[in-house]
Order: sequence, then structure tokens, then C-alpha cells
Amino acid sequence: MLLASLSMAAATITSPNGNIELKFYVDQQGRPVYEMSYKGRPVILPSHLGLELAKDKHASRGTNETDLMTGFTLKSEQSREFDETWRPVWGETATIRNHYNEYAATLSQPTERREIIIRFRVYDDGLGFRYEFPQQQELNYFLIREEHSEFAMAGDHTAWWLPGDYDTQEQETQECRLSEIRDRYRQAVNWGNSSVAVFSPTGVQTSLQMKSQDGLYINIHEAACINYATMHLELVDAQTKALTTKLEGNSNVYTPNPLPSSYPLPKPFTFVSHLTPDATGLKGCMQTPCQSPWRTVMVSDDARDMLSSNLILNLNEPCALDDTSWIHPTKYCGVWWEMIVGKSSWNYTDELPSVYIDKVDWQQLKPNGRHAANNEKVRRYIDFAADNGLDQVLVEGWNVGWEDWANMWKRDVFDFQTPYPDFDLKALNDYAHSRGVKLMMHHETSSSTQNYERHLEKAYQLMNQYGYDAVKSGYVGDIIPRGDHHYSQSMNDHYLHCIKEAAKHHIMVNAHEAVRPTGLCRTYPNLVGNESARGTEYEAFGGSRPDHTVILPFTRLQGGPMDYTPGILETQLGTWSDNKNIVHTTLVGQLALYVTMYSPLQMAADLPENYAKYMDAFQFIKDVACDWDDSRYLEAEPADYITVARKAKGTDNWFVGGKCDENGHLTTLKLDFLDKGRKYEATIYADAKDAHYETNPKAYTITRKTVKAGQTLKLQQAPGGGFAISIIAL
Amino acid sequence: MLLASLSMAAATITSPNGNIELKFYVDQQGRPVYEMSYKGRPVILPSHLGLELAKDKHASRGTNETDLMTGFTLKSEQSREFDETWRPVWGETATIRNHYNEYAATLSQPTERREIIIRFRVYDDGLGFRYEFPQQQELNYFLIREEHSEFAMAGDHTAWWLPGDYDTQEQETQECRLSEIRDRYRQAVNWGNSSVAVFSPTGVQTSLQMKSQDGLYINIHEAACINYATMHLELVDAQTKALTTKLEGNSNVYTPNPLPSSYPLPKPFTFVSHLTPDATGLKGCMQTPCQSPWRTVMVSDDARDMLSSNLILNLNEPCALDDTSWIHPTKYCGVWWEMIVGKSSWNYTDELPSVYIDKVDWQQLKPNGRHAANNEKVRRYIDFAADNGLDQVLVEGWNVGWEDWANMWKRDVFDFQTPYPDFDLKALNDYAHSRGVKLMMHHETSSSTQNYERHLEKAYQLMNQYGYDAVKSGYVGDIIPRGDHHYSQSMNDHYLHCIKEAAKHHIMVNAHEAVRPTGLCRTYPNLVGNESARGTEYEAFGGSRPDHTVILPFTRLQGGPMDYTPGILETQLGTWSDNKNIVHTTLVGQLALYVTMYSPLQMAADLPENYAKYMDAFQFIKDVACDWDDSRYLEAEPADYITVARKAKGTDNWFVGGKCDENGHLTTLKLDFLDKGRKYEATIYADAKDAHYETNPKAYTITRKTVKAGQTLKLQQAPGGGFAISIIAL
Repeated sequence: MLLASLSMAAATITSPNGNIELKFYVDQQGRPVYEMSYKGRPVILPSHLGLELAKDKHASRGTNETDLMTGFTLKSEQSREFDETWRPVWGETATIRNHYNEYAATLSQPTERREIIIRFRVYDDGLGFRYEFPQQQELNYFLIREEHSEFAMAGDHTAWWLPGDYDTQEQETQECRLSEIRDRYRQAVNWGNSSVAVFSPTGVQTSLQMKSQDGLYINIHEAACINYATMHLELVDAQTKALTTKLEGNSNVYTPNPLPSSYPLPKPFTFVSHLTPDATGLKGCMQTPCQSPWRTVMVSDDARDMLSSNLILNLNEPCALDDTSWIHPTKYCGVWWEMIVGKSSWNYTDELPSVYIDKVDWQQLKPNGRHAANNEKVRRYIDFAADNGLDQVLVEGWNVGWEDWANMWKRDVFDFQTPYPDFDLKALNDYAHSRGVKLMMHHETSSSTQNYERHLEKAYQLMNQYGYDAVKSGYVGDIIPRGDHHYSQSMNDHYLHCIKEAAKHHIMVNAHEAVRPTGLCRTYPNLVGNESARGTEYEAFGGSRPDHTVILPFTRLQGGPMDYTPGILETQLGTWSDNKNIVHTTLVGQLALYVTMYSPLQMAADLPENYAKYMDAFQFIKDVACDWDDSRYLEAEPADYITVARKAKGTDNWFVGGKCDENGHLTTLKLDFLDKGRKYEATIYADAKDAHYETNPKAYTITRKTVKAGQTLKLQQAPGGGFAISIIAL
Repeated sequence: MLLASLSMAAATITSPNGNIELKFYVDQQGRPVYEMSYKGRPVILPSHLGLELAKDKHASRGTNETDLMTGFTLKSEQSREFDETWRPVWGETATIRNHYNEYAATLSQPTERREIIIRFRVYDDGLGFRYEFPQQQELNYFLIREEHSEFAMAGDHTAWWLPGDYDTQEQETQECRLSEIRDRYRQAVNWGNSSVAVFSPTGVQTSLQMKSQDGLYINIHEAACINYATMHLELVDAQTKALTTKLEGNSNVYTPNPLPSSYPLPKPFTFVSHLTPDATGLKGCMQTPCQSPWRTVMVSDDARDMLSSNLILNLNEPCALDDTSWIHPTKYCGVWWEMIVGKSSWNYTDELPSVYIDKVDWQQLKPNGRHAANNEKVRRYIDFAADNGLDQVLVEGWNVGWEDWANMWKRDVFDFQTPYPDFDLKALNDYAHSRGVKLMMHHETSSSTQNYERHLEKAYQLMNQYGYDAVKSGYVGDIIPRGDHHYSQSMNDHYLHCIKEAAKHHIMVNAHEAVRPTGLCRTYPNLVGNESARGTEYEAFGGSRPDHTVILPFTRLQGGPMDYTPGILETQLGTWSDNKNIVHTTLVGQLALYVTMYSPLQMAADLPENYAKYMDAFQFIKDVACDWDDSRYLEAEPADYITVARKAKGTDNWFVGGKCDENGHLTTLKLDFLDKGRKYEATIYADAKDAHYETNPKAYTITRKTVKAGQTLKLQQAPGGGFAISIIAL
């Protein structure tokens, strides 16, 4: 029975397997309310839904114009069951089942003669809901002042959170109780990050992973964020009894946007949505018919379900591209890590304090001798890729403009066309192609989106001309147009615009510093990756905690793959550079990431000369697949450990990865997933007994053995370590 | 002697003929000061120069970082005389002399280790000065909080002014004493204009025409506004003794931006520059080397010199285009006035409250029956143009999206590609070309500049494909990106970007609602016109005063030609439509505008069927040239009358126009400009004796007579009237 009960009072909708139950009703003030439970345990306590609009300066319609939160009556209801299985272009599994019970309430607001629809989809592992705004006489264009969707938690859960911020998502994840967020907030923000734009001492980002005291795993995020601002969450502030209070003492803090005074104060431990504003402070410009993204709540009593869930992808629309034959998983290396570490530079010259890229005679300038993207070095990387079966070579710093590229409010910063004098665009591409390798394009926009859009078509044409089929783009620094933010409606539109235009050119996109993904890769599978979190580069900037990579799959990866750039085998940077930082994993831990951090785009991020020192370990990076027919999450606990086995696409081979935090972890690996009766050769890359990410990171063992289904392997992961296994069918 | 005196105390620079004298010095507080006189009479009393910078959030350098106004010492001086004669691609005269004495002071600010240059060019009819910012260690990137250039007037002059506004320049010109501006301000603003964004009760726009009580004509404007925000002027407020006070009672009023408190209060009747802000309130993002536009002060004791001056053009850079052969003067008609009057519509259907232009099946929609840009009507206009020697036919409303185009914050409003179902793009162009006529493209952007730039290349390609070589663009409504303004640095860059891209496609641009011009047509002569003021359309929206067209040449036209769209011979709109407005000139007054309002682009704006009623008068519009070898301003007084004789390009024919205000005017026209001894046939279009713009507008006489040099004609212009004469060499 789809609808267990449906009365004027409340609709109850259960998930296909009955584990999740949703209640929806309109309360006496005409406010939409929902609540959610899992196996009879409360997940979302009664929570209000609605939006607050802004007055339209051109067509204001009176005092109640802005209230899309109260005064509703339930006009009609619709429900249906949906069950499909679809095949992703790339992914963790060959097929994905999309099975839900849907409930849509059409709500009428008689005083304003308006209607909205709130639509729920209830899955076995969570639910999504969104606001839909049909085209209608009294609601054609509207401005969003704030969305006030509540998520009332049932207790003082443990949360893994990032400070809510309009411009960066590269902070270190915090772990504390909900009640502790406010006190933790100030230290959670790395104020030295020039992009910091926080807005509330209880504002956090999604995907937000939580765990209740009685062992429920709960995750809040969003799906299909299109033509809408990215959502943050603000926790009701128990200290001040107000929603938002202003953070003191920092200029990058924005004006609080409290709930309307008429609105009842939410319960404690309640999150309320907080959208990213545009330059004027507004959160959205809408034209009906339209809808919000899906707001998602995933829940399970098994942490592994958080990782295997396809809820976010399923809530996105099917693939919009007719031809996807040109989209392919990609393993790459690149001229990158040595600049990140500080050994070489993106820029070509140090002669000028600033440049106008179209007025400088680059041939006449004195090279600084540190420019990495030079013909000789790129050829070495091409050779390395060709020799080791890597598909592509990323080259950052190939194009003019890096002399003064960041944080200058410089609009015409790059042209994405003109190579530095020591980078022979044609010859290097020809050489790469002669060796069976492609170059990967790099478009750092410096967040000057106006400039990027002006050059976009020609930049993509240049890629087509020379045979590039993938671009890593970047959005470092303050957004131009000035006053806009990285996660606003208009910027979200910009990122998608680039993805759509790239698809026309058969170009895959890997956008760094762009908005955190919300599953759009289902609809636009040429979006093969994003950064949108704290990547490996931070290991050279002071480091990330060892548990970082066993948090990200629960949070950042919910929306889509991350170009985390693993594979730093020489974890002690001081051994080959002046950078004294260490990578906060063991060497084997780096190998494990290729399996535990799913992505169709995987970098072998270390330098060829560093890999040369560990060619036996590097063999795993050469062997590991990056597209899969099946994935089995074998054990998982947020910030503690993740173990997953994946079956390589179109083969009978499996790759298993285990990664743990600073405490180490003993994995008992049951080889249940192998075909019964078949023999496999396993190559086991394991931390040595005395390995430790700080004191002895590069101590590892490589063991080969024949294995079969039913066997069990004991694998001791070192502090900050992991393991990686290739299992080749014989 | 170029420098009459040059000491540590003050430099004195005179104009080539000695009429104008400039003094420049650095005062005891290290503030740059200039003053200016004309024939010994003060024009600019001692006035300070300088800029206030904003702190850079990424690279703040301490407390004095923002002060680029005080603490300067005179480091060095340079002077030179310059004299050239250049040939404009189109213009009022075949050649233009550019003759000035230049003085440049390099100013050092030791505490900040910075240098700037203030450069003056002193002409016989005025001067220009600008700030130059050389590339230097301590000044590479900077943000402008405000420019504080003072223009201290010597008395309580009469001024012809528009309210300073960040988004519209289409208000009616005000005439009053400087001391009366504040009291006049509120009524000067048409608050019904949805674009109003005023900022100060004494803020005015440039070009600002003034007249002193003792008969000096003074005009303040700017030249070569490139990569900089448009300048307004704020009058020192005698009432409050502060520079800017907030206008009360209107939401479109911006935060005052007062002078720094440490700064001395300027003298009474002092204007101080006020730049147009971006969405964050800042006025400019600069990278050295760079410079401000020229700030211009024109002066004469003869009003005609205000009109014949080429100072603004001369202060612009020479033509930047290698090939200008494709740029040509253009006379055109168009499907336009009947929509302005309200008789037909731009949009095709009334069925939908809003449209997504790429999701609508236009063929299936019900036409509203009022769509003007249809095949049948456009063919009639093509025939009319061909039959009467007009070059082009503008068609507005040809492309989809007009159903909901304005003031909706709609980004994807037009695609500039898709015609309405009843507009056959190919067939109509083919037909036009078969008749020796071109269609003129129309790109209304709805101020969604982001959308326009995304489509710009393809829109221009479409024009090339079908043989369009000119585009009228429009910027109605609020700017997208939201929060930006029509005259900000970034928008000024947008307009120029479009002009430059158009030039690559050999396309001429006529941008409406874009920033008021500052002589850029010298450098980019494919900028053949702008609106940027209150055009003829306002005659259908309630009217403009009869003196409007004898003010505009003193103000708006200083920066470049205006697409005023004259030629409304059926001045009483109610005779053919439901619009009850009248045009506030006589019929002959409309003819005069083709001569008095110089433009290389002239529209015959009335309907073919209206011209059919006055074909004898229409003959002048057919005959009149729109490019000239010579122009002689014969009499002029701001807001009273203008009479000018112009010699048609490459001919010996002259056209004379006289236009007056509501009081009428008797012109004694001496035919001194004709070649001595030669005979000419003059056709004189004159107001009939009882003509009057309100009561009897269409009473006119046409007289033919043979004339020769030395003769005098007496021409009585009616109230709101004028005259027009064609003088054809025999």
C-alpha cells in the first residue's frame, strides 16, 4: 500500500521496503509540515517548509506578497510508485535502481491566489523533497529573499561539518555535537583563506553527515541544484534564541538574515536552509514554471548505506546528451604537484609586477627559470604517461597571465589561447598523440567568469583543434562580476553553462573551486569531476588530518566524484623540495584512495621521479580501474575507516581499498564478492608492521597470492594508513 | 612661449591663441590644485584634484593607503605643443584640427612611495585633464572609492542639467541657477521611470552646460571614458555644508559617499566628481599603467563655439581600426514608431504570462494580431525605403522573447537568433537586397548583458550571414549581473566590448540606453550612434519640452551623435492612433533636426502612410545628407535656438537648419558660406505664418528660389518650429 493513510490531517508515505515513513500536513497556521522516521525512530521532527520572497521593485503587490510560508491549504494530493533501472555512462555500478514512492501536495494560498507544489520522493535510504512553482497568474516572476526549509533533528547528534561559506568549501571538516558547533565555529574557520565569506556562527555546509547517539546515520544535502543558489544550513542558536547572529571581528562576515519576526522559533537542533546570495543580497530570481533543487535526507543504521546510496543521482534528471561515446574514464598525471609544493612556478617571468597579457611581448621577457610548463618537462611527463599506461597529461601554467592572476580583481586575466614562449602547443600535442597520450587542458579562470565566458567558445575550439578532450577549470579568488559569490544562483548557472557548452565540443569538465556537486553528472556525464573540497594540495599547505579521506566519501562525494589527486607516494615533501610538510597518510594509504574515493577521473599526482623510487607500489596505480561494474562497501564508519571492493568495468577483476584514520584499523576482509570456484591472483599492498603516517610512512609490503571466494584476509592498516589489493581473475 | 611662467609655486599654461590660461600647483597640504581663466575671466576657481582609494581586502598596506589626494610633492614637469589635423571617417567637417599645449605634472607621494601624473591639454576652446597611474612597485592594483576632482565655478551660473543617476539619462533637462538645483531636484526626477537610481539632491550628469551671468558658456564633460566608471558631478550643498545628503522617501536612492572628513570643504558652487559604482559600491578596479578619462571644461563667450568644438573628439585616441571602408552614413526608416505609439506590438502572442524562449513552440502559439514585425509590413517598409532612397530598414520585434522582456530580472530573455513565425529572415533580407536596401538588425538586450555576451558572436555571425551591417542595440531595464549599473566601469567595458567585436564583423553599432558617449567614435568609428538621452520616443510618452532639441546639441551631443529619430511629420498622434500625445515641434521643426542634430545615422521615424500625406515636405528628408565636409554654426543660444549650415560630403551642396524653442525665433540668414559667384537653387521649408507646435503644427510653406553668396534670407520660426533649406549648386 503506497499511502498508509491519507486524510485531511496528514498524509503518510512509506518507502518501498517500509523502513522510512514520511508524514506531511498543513498546520493550523497554514504552514506545510513534514516529519520523517526510520524503522520507527524519529529522523526529522515536525519541520516547517516555505519561502520568503522579496518585494519586486517593479511590480509590488502588497504586504503579503513576500510570504510563501503560511496561509496555505491543501488543495490536492498525488502519489505514485516509480521503479526504473538505468545505466550510468560511468559509475560505481553498471546499473542503478531508482525506486521510490512519490507524494505531491498542491498547496493553495488563497489570500495571494497562488499555488505551490511540494513533492516528496521516499526511498529506502532516504527522501528528497522540492518546491515546485507552476506558471500562474499571480506567480510568474519572483525574487527569493530566503528559503526556510527546516530539518529538525531528534537529538544532539555528532556532526561532521564545514563552516557555511559563500566562497570556499576547502576548510577542514569539524567533528562535534550539534550543541557544540557555535563554540567550535571560530576555530573551524581558517581565516587566512582569502576566500572566506562566512555568514553565521552556526552556519554549516552540506552534504552534512551526522550520527545520532543511538546509531542512526543521517545525511542532509541537495540534488539537482540548477538555476538556484546553493543551500547552507543554519542551526537554531540555543544561546541567543535567534536564528542568526552576526559574527564579530571579521570583515568577511555577512549581514544576518533572520527568520521573519512572525515566524515561530524552531525547535532546538533544527537546521534551517540558508541560500547563497547574489551581489544585492537576494537569493534567487525565478520564473515559473520552475522548482527548487531537491532537499535530501539520507538515513540508515548502517554507515555503509551512506556510501552506496544513489539517492542524489536518482533525484537528478536522466542524461541530457544524445551521444556519450566520447566520455571516458581517465587516468592522468600532470605538471602540477611540483608547483603546489613550491619547487616551480606557473608564471614564466618575475620581471613585471603586473601584466596586460595582450600588450606584453612574451618573447622579450626574461624567464624566471622556474616555469614548469616547458617543452622539455612536458615531454618527460608525456613519456611517463605513455610508459605507464596513463591516458592524459595535465599541464598547468601553459598559458600567459600567471604573473598576477589571483585576488587582484583583474578581469582580463587569461585568454586561454596564448601559450608561454617555452610551451609549443602544437608540437607537444603532436608528440603526446604520437605516444598514444592526450594532453589535458587547464583553464584557470581566476573567478573572472565574465572574461572566461567571453573566451569560452574559442578556448573550446582551440581544444578541438589540438585534440584535447578534457579540461580542468579553476575558480580561485573573488568572483567577477564583483560582489557575486561562488555558490550563488548566477554562478551555479555559469558552471552549468560551461558544462553544456563543453558537451557541444565533446569536452569533459573537471571544475575546481566550483560549487559542490549535487548529482548533475547523471544529466551531464561530461562533468567527470569537481574539486569543491579540501584536496590533496592542502597536504603541501600545512596538511589535512588523517581522517579527512574517510570523511569525504560521507560528505563531499555524495554529490559526485572529486578530483582529489591522490598518489603522493613520496609523502615527505622535504626529501625533494624545500616544503617541509608531510602528507598525512602512509604510502599505501595513498594507493587505497584510488578505490575508496570513487572517481572516473584519477590523477597520479606525484612526480615521475618520485614514482621511479617506488615502481613496485606504483604498479597498483597503473593497474587500478576507474570505472566499475560493481561496488561493495564492506565496512565503514565516518572519520574512522572505509573498505570497499570494486569490480573493474567489463572484466572479472576486483580492486579492494581500505583506508583508516590516525588510529589504524584491522580489516577482516571476506572475499565473498568473488565468483565461487574461480581462482584469482591477488596483489596485496599493505602497510608494513611499523608503518605510521608521521614517523614511517613509506614502509610497505607487497604480497602476491592466489585467492578464491570464501577466503578471509586479515589486513592491519597503520595509523593514517590503508591497504590496496588487485584481484585478477585467472 | 608655451609656459608663461613655471616656478615651484605654480605653472601657468596658455592655449595656442592665449585665450585660456591654466594654473597648476601643489598646495601646502600637498594637494594638487588647478585654476582656469578665459580672456582673463575666471572659469574654474582654485580646485583640488585627487582620488580616494578603497582598502584592498587582500593586500592592505596601512592607514594612508587610501589617500591619493594629499601629501604630494611636484617631482617633475613636462610640456609640449601639439598640432595635427586629422580626417574623421564621418563627421561634421572633412578635417579636424587638434591643437593644444600640454602640461604634465609628475606628483610624488613620499609617505606611500607612489607617483601619479596629472596631464592637462589646453585648447583655445577649453581644456582636458586626466590622472595617469604609471606602473610602479607600490601601485599596481587599486580600487577606487571615489574620484574627488573639483570644478569650482566662479559664480551662480545658469545650468542645463539632468539629475545624476546611475541608470537613466532620459529625464527632461532642467534649467536653473546652481543655487536652485537642490530645490528643483525632486521635481526634476521622473520617479515613474523604472530605472531611476539617483544618489544625491545636488547630483547632476555631464555633459553639463552652463552660462555665467556675464555671458561665458561653460561646459563640463569627459572624454575617452574607457575602463572607468562614468562621472557625475555633485554640487557642494550650501544648505547642509556637506557634500552629499541622502534623498529621502525613495528606495532607489543610494548611500551618500561623502568626502573624507579630513578634507577641506570646497567653495560654494563647486562641483565634485562622483563616479558610478559597481554592485559592491566601489567605483573602479584599476591595474597600472592606466589613466582616468579626460575631464573636460569647454569655455567661450560665443555659444556657437560650444557646438563647433572638437575638444572631446580630439582628446580621444586616433582610429583603432585598420579598415573603415565598410563604415558609412546611413539614412533609415523602420518598424518602430507605431509600436512606440502603441498601435502595434513587439511581442507576437498574448497567450503566455511568461515564456522560456527555447521551450516554446512558437508555431503553435496564437498570434495576438498586433505583431508589427511581420512579413507583409516589413515588405511595405522595404518598398518605402527603396522608393525614397533610404538605405536601411530597422525592424524591432523580429526575434522571439518580447512577451516578458523587461524588468523581470530575466536572464535568458532573447537569443538574437530566432525570428517570430511571421518574420521570414531570409526572404525579407533577400527582398530588401533585391531592392537595393539593407535591413538593420535590432538587439534589445533587456540589460541582461551576461545573456547578450553569451550570444554575441553568433548574433553577429547571423548578421554577416544575412547581410546586415548595422545593429541598434538596447539596454532597457535593470542590469544583469544584478546590482550593477548602466554607467559603471564594468558596463562601460561591456559596451566597448560589443563595439570592438562588432568591428571584427564589419558591423556598425547604435546602442540605446547605453552610457552617454565621450567621443569614442573617433577611435571606434563603427560606433555610429547612441541614444543615451531623451529621444523622440518620449513625445509618445507624454512629450518633451520644445526647447529640448536646442539643448541637446549643447549637452548630450558633445560626446557623439545621437540617434534621436526625428522626422515625425504627423505630429498629432491622435490623428492615426489612440495615443493622444503631440510632438512638441512643428512639422518643419522636425525637418530642421536633420541638420541641427548632427548624426551620421538618421532615421525617418514616421510611418510610410504618414509621409504619404506630406510628400513635399518629406522631400527634404530624402535630400538631406548625413555626412559633411563643413559645418558652420551661424547662431546659437542654449534652450533658445540653433542655426547651422552644413556642406554635404563630396558635393557643393549645402543644407541649413534652424530650430528654436517655444518662443519662436527670427533668423537672418546670411549666405556667406556659399561660393562667391556661383548660383544655387534653394528649397526653403518654413513654418507658415500661423504655425505653432501645439495649435497648428503642420502649417508650412515650401519655396524655391535661386540664391548666391552674400544674399540674406529672413526666416521666421514658429513657436516650437524651425526651418530647413536645401541649397543645391547649379
